[in-house]
Parts: sequence; structure tokens; C-alpha cells
Amino acid sequence: MKFRFLPQETNFFDLFAKQADYAVDAASSFKKIVMAGLHDEKSLTEMHDVEHLGDEVAHDIFERLNKTFITPFDREDIHSLAKELDDIIDMLYTITNHLRVYNIRGVDKNLVEFASVIEESVQSVAKAVKGLRNMKNAKTVLEACVEINRLENVGDSMRDSVVANLFETSKDPIFVIKWKETYQDAETVLDICEDVAHIVASIILKQA
Amino acid sequence: MKFRFLPQETNFFDLFAKQADYAVDAASSFKKIVMAGLHDEKSLTEMHDVEHLGDEVAHDIFERLNKTFITPFDREDIHSLAKELDDIIDMLYTITNHLRVYNIRGVDKNLVEFASVIEESVQSVAKAVKGLRNMKNAKTVLEACVEINRLENVGDSMRDSVVANLFETSKDPIFVIKWKETYQDAETVLDICEDVAHIVASIILKQA
Amino acid sequence: MKFRFLPQETNFFDLFAKQADYAVDAASSFKKIVMAGLHDEKSLTEMHDVEHLGDEVAHDIFERLNKTFITPFDREDIHSLAKELDDIIDMLYTITNHLRVYNIRGVDKNLVEFASVIEESVQSVAKAVKGLRNMKNAKTVLEACVEINRLENVGDSMRDSVVANLFETSKDPIFVIKWKETYQDAETVLDICEDVAHIVASIILKQA
Repeated sequence: MKFRFLPQETNFFDLFAKQADYAVDAASSFKKIVMAGLHDEKSLTEMHDVEHLGDEVAHDIFERLNKTFITPFDREDIHSLAKELDDIIDMLYTITNHLRVYNIRGVDKNLVEFASVIEESVQSVAKAVKGLRNMKNAKTVLEACVEINRLENVGDSMRDSVVANLFETSKDPIFVIKWKETYQDAETVLDICEDVAHIVASIILKQA
Repeated sequence: MKFRFLPQETNFFDLFAKQADYAVDAASSFKKIVMAGLHDEKSLTEMHDVEHLGDEVAHDIFERLNKTFITPFDREDIHSLAKELDDIIDMLYTITNHLRVYNIRGVDKNLVEFASVIEESVQSVAKAVKGLRNMKNAKTVLEACVEINRLENVGDSMRDSVVANLFETSKDPIFVIKWKETYQDAETVLDICEDVAHIVASIILKQA
Repeated sequence: MKFRFLPQETNFFDLFAKQADYAVDAASSFKKIVMAGLHDEKSLTEMHDVEHLGDEVAHDIFERLNKTFITPFDREDIHSLAKELDDIIDMLYTITNHLRVYNIRGVDKNLVEFASVIEESVQSVAKAVKGLRNMKNAKTVLEACVEINRLENVGDSMRDSVVANLFETSKDPIFVIKWKETYQDAETVLDICEDVAHIVASIILKQA
């Protein structure tokens, strides 16, 4: 919590662009980490740094929102958008932290596939959020939202399939506990991306 | 996401009645499915269809809310009510999907009992939500809310009792993982119904 | 749900002070219970009573908020604050109930440590919330918020460490299921305290 006098004009679009970039960084780090299969303290520092930067920009948005009278779109949408973008990063950090705490080792091809879908989805999230700056981008933004929804459906099927397979094939309950949570959390990242898409689409629709 | 010009007057009460009916449909399907003990792809299609219809009406409410200046009650209450009603249906779909993904077979008498209590509660939810149309129904609506709260308490005790019994009697951790989650999720449906009751009671109180 | 005519002037600060005191009571009861290692019906009655009293004051705040036109700070902040304080108490009740339902017996030194950190954090929550009454307290309130954040970080490390240790040392999956959830839920109490700190700090900042 930092306290300072804020300038009269806050460019929320710049702050959201920054936050979206951190989300993309988090998704890329996540993919790199699960592809390397290294979930040690060192490999997590990078993810933790992004999580911290993401936190800072989210709090910056919340603070400035409290001090700003005229906002480019509905206050509650600004708040929700900043919160959900932060949630994407937090969830990726949580999964990575679980990989370390649960002492999960090696490369899991299902998790790598999830990480790829998550990276694609978060890239579309960034495209959608950055496009809000100008209503001329409405079409591109809404297409990105459709793509995010599509990837959420892909993720749903993937999770159902890998979790079903986990219960079918694994006889080790501890293994099941760890991976069931990991796969379900990975899919949750895509759910949060979909929440962002809903907020973004709703902002566009209100201004249409 | 569909985009269209909306008529000036939206009857939110009609949309909520529709959404409440879908919630009742979902609760009925859920009861039918657990009573039959069939959790295959085919038996889930019906539930998925209801979930899809529920999604559509929820998004319809959100969109119209964005375009409507005069609403029959507080905007945030309209939003919360649509969201919670959607959550009831989503949660029922999630449980049904887990029954399939976790490959749970056969009829479980505890789950059947949960399904009955859920059906009763969702029927009261529909009564409460539909009654909002006219303040003359205030007494009936509030009675339905009291009934929903009562059923939530019933559900709490049921869940505690069946989960305690699960830990006492089962030696199979995989079985415990599956059923602990299923019973807890079933009780969560009743929690969401109680959230609806709180919103509805609050709407009535504000207008009293 | 009780219905009555409300006086014109509601002192929300008094109600929040009451709610904060119940949260402190809940945290103290929780510590006492886990230190005694008794998780039977009788020892839970006390916790349940606090939970009930907490519920009543939360609903009182929500009702009065609906009937009050002039509030000492933003309506949504009053709502969020009452909700989060209620969530602290609910979560403590949930954990205690799980200890009974999961038939966990004896004293666990990790849980005792969590209970101590939770008690400290909730005491800081009470200090922060009660300080809102007067902007002269701003510095003390913000210091309490910093302390709550610090304790949340402490809790994060504790949870990671005890859960990692649980997976390393326990060969009993049922034991893992019970304790993983218990430790994670204990840390969640500290997360909710941190949410309160954010709301309180934001209220102070808006008035600065």
C-alpha cells in the first residue's frame, strides 16, 4: 500500500496494457517452467516477480480509480477488469507454487498442452484489453473475445479427459490428489480469461 | 455473445421467470439422473442443454441491463440475481459432469436425498423469484425465502453426516476424494439457493 | 430475516465494532479449541454461537444499508466490509466443523501456530475497523493494515511449508486429504483478513 497524490489525469488504458503484458509474461513463464519440468525455488522466482509487478499495477488502478472522477468506462467495469487480470496472474503463480510444494517433478505432456492453450488465451486477453482504447477496434476486440471463449471450451474438454484418465489409470491416491487439483486449476485460468472476455465485450456493447 | 438492438422496454420479470424455470428443469434433470444412476454422455446431454439455455437467458439479462436506464429494482440486484440463478444451474451441471468424469456408477441413496432437497429448494427459489413481479406477493415470497433457508440447514446437516460417515467407513481414498467433493458440491447448490433468497428478501425489504 | 422499521440514524461504526468483536471472539475460540485438541459437538457450540451472532450483525448492517440514504463511507465499501468480516467468522466455523466431521483428534502444533497467527491478524483487523470511526486514527489504522498483510505472508510460508512436509512424510492419503484442506483453509482466513485490510485502506485513502 503506497500513498501519494495522484495526477488529475490517469490513463487507465496504459495501466491495463501494462497489466495485460504482465499476464502474458506470467503465461509465458508458466509454459517455460512446465516445459522444463523444473519446479524448484529458483525457477519460481521469475513467476513470483511477475506476480508482484502485477499486484502493483492492480493496486495502482484501484487507487487511481478512487481518486478519479471521470473514467473512460464504468467504474465497476474498471474494477472488475483489473481484478480479473490480477486473478489470471495469481492463479498461474498458485499452480506453479503447488508444483513446488507438492514436489511434482518432470515434464507432464498434459500440463504442457494446458500451458500452451493458456498462453494463447492470455495473448487474446491482451489483444482484447488493449483494443479497448479505441472503439474502431471493436471488431478485433470482439473476435479476440470469441477466441477466448473457444479456448475455454477446449480447456474444459482437456480437463475432463485428463481427469477421467487420471482416475482410470492411477492407483496412487496421493498422485491423484496432486494432479486432479493441478489440471482443474489450469482450467480455472481459462475460466478467468473468459470472465475477462465477458467484461470486455460488455464494455464494448455499452458504448456501441 | 450476440449483438442486437434492444427494444426500449425489457420485462426483467419475464426473463427471471424463464431463468428460474431453467433452474427448476436443471434440478429435475439432476434428480432424474442420480435416481437412474446413469452418468453417461447421453444422460448428460439433457443437463447440458438446460445449462446452455440458462447461459443464454443470463447473458440476455446482462446485455439488456446495460442498455436499460429504468429498471424495476436496483441494477446490482438484477445483476446478482441473474448471476446466482445461473450459478445454480452451472453447479448442477458441474456435479453431473463430475459423476461422468469420475466414472461414478450406480444409485447412491445419499445423493438421491440431496437431489430431492435441491429440487424442493429450487422450486422455492422459482416461487420467490416469480413473486417479485408484484409487491402483493411479498408475504409468499418471504415465506419461500424462509423455506430456502430451512432447506439449506437441512443440507448442511446431511452433508456433515454423510461426509463424516464416508471418512469413518471408507478405506478407499479415491472413493473418498470423489464422494467428498460430490456431497460438498451438492450442499453448495443449497448455499447458492440461500444467496438467491437473501437477494430476493433484500429487494422486497427495500421496496417495503 | 427480521423486518422492522429502522431509526433514521444508523451508527455503522458501532455495528462494525460489534462485528469485529465477534470476529475476535471466533479467533479466540478457534485457538482455544485447537489448543485443547477437542473437536466434539460440545466444544463447537461456542463457535456456532459466535457464528450466529456474527450473522445477525451482518444482516443488520445489510438491512440498514438498504434503508439509509446517507452513509459514512461508500455504500459498496460498507457492504464489502460487512461481508468480509462475516467471511472470517464463517471460515473459522467451517474449519472447526471439519475438525469434527473429519474426526480429527489431538493437538496439532502446526494448527496451533496457525491459530495464533490468525488471532493476531483478527486483532489487527478489529483495530483497523474500529479506527475507521475517526480520520485522526488514519496512521494507526494503516499500520494495522500493514501488520495484517505481514501476517498473511507469514501464513503463506507456513502453509507451503506444512503442506510440503505433509506430502513428504505422510503415506496415508486420507490423512493428507484432511490436513491439506485444514491448513489451506487456515491460510484462507488470513487471506480474508488481508481483503479487509485492503477495503479499510481504500476507505482511508478516499477520505484523505
